[in-house]
Amino acid sequence: MRAERGLVLALDTTDLARTRFVAGAVRGEVDAIKVGWPLVLASGIDIVEELARSSYVLCDFKVADIPNTNRLIVEQAVARGASGVIAHGFPGEDSVRACVEAARTADVFVVAEMSHPGGEEFTSRHAEEIARLAVRAGAAGIIAPATRPERIAALRGILGSRLILSPGVGAQGGTATDAIHMGADAVIVGRSIYEAADPAKAAAALASEVARARRGR
Amino acid sequence: MRAERGLVLALDTTDLARTRFVAGAVRGEVDAIKVGWPLVLASGIDIVEELARSSYVLCDFKVADIPNTNRLIVEQAVARGASGVIAHGFPGEDSVRACVEAARTADVFVVAEMSHPGGEEFTSRHAEEIARLAVRAGAAGIIAPATRPERIAALRGILGSRLILSPGVGAQGGTATDAIHMGADAVIVGRSIYEAADPAKAAAALASEVARARRGR
Repeated sequence: MRAERGLVLALDTTDLARTRFVAGAVRGEVDAIKVGWPLVLASGIDIVEELARSSYVLCDFKVADIPNTNRLIVEQAVARGASGVIAHGFPGEDSVRACVEAARTADVFVVAEMSHPGGEEFTSRHAEEIARLAVRAGAAGIIAPATRPERIAALRGILGSRLILSPGVGAQGGTATDAIHMGADAVIVGRSIYEAADPAKAAAALASEVARARRGR
Repeated sequence: MRAERGLVLALDTTDLARTRFVAGAVRGEVDAIKVGWPLVLASGIDIVEELARSSYVLCDFKVADIPNTNRLIVEQAVARGASGVIAHGFPGEDSVRACVEAARTADVFVVAEMSHPGGEEFTSRHAEEIARLAVRAGAAGIIAPATRPERIAALRGILGSRLILSPGVGAQGGTATDAIHMGADAVIVGRSIYEAADPAKAAAALASEVARARRGR
């Protein structure tokens, strides 16, 4: 992924008409469209193929199985046009490596921190270890939430030139400016864009905020 | 799930004809059929609906997201006929509770241990904590592999009357006898059944082994 605009749309819609409308509207304003299991279950995996014709599709499948199953999941996502896949690091390095190998030229991003309260019970306790694991396994980067911007800063040094994508901006309470200042390469935004009356305008405003935050870094 | 026979088929096939043949052949020999993402990606979620007409379907989705996304995934699995869903405990108690609430009368099983080498890096270090979390959150039971039978024994005391399902029997090296002796309620078996020349016969032999092991416990 090239984080040119520093903005990824989390397309957490399940209504197919709205999904298509929002994806089409924001195409020029975002670096990628993140698609998760709820949409794939509602629409079928064909939605990945459809969106991938005109956008970088990041399959947020939180892949978290044994290596062979991870491989089978990632292979199918990439075969359908996904340019990136999100995997968990806690199933261990062999599981992440299986994703990276199966992805071939596609990107794998590893969840290092989660944005909800339960993320502090186990995930946060291992965030640095998982970020190092992601680097060793050849991942394209990590996921670390804007709701904990100080954690982004802590992980930035481990990542080198690899990417940090930060969800949790907007409805969940984080800000794009904080996340970028702390070292995120892109923010992942859902409801603030797809629930907006004018999704393209909302995305453009966020991309402008990212650009300003980058200049002020 | 009622673990009468103590046997769950892991239907890790992606060929639809073979999937249907094996599911039909073993129906009377297993307590449940476990279906994962590779099959759902290859066949569509309709396969869950189809299998659920005549079997207890356990969706092995390794659900591992924030509470709201977990809820959306589990709701869709149950709406399609799943009687049980497998979730990870690593994302924390709120995420597991969201699965249990969304499942309503369906079962949620929480992964406490994984069967592959990478499972020892993080998951095994928190297996007891996650087993206790599963009990608190109202899960039907946990997943703990037959490849580490001593771990099943360690977790048995935490679970009380809740179920322990143990994968890793057969191709992965664990045995049904060891798993049952250590306290598993059912073993989860894949390749030894679905790659057998006669899947029903292979399943019946495993069910007999479980019955013998239970008598010797």
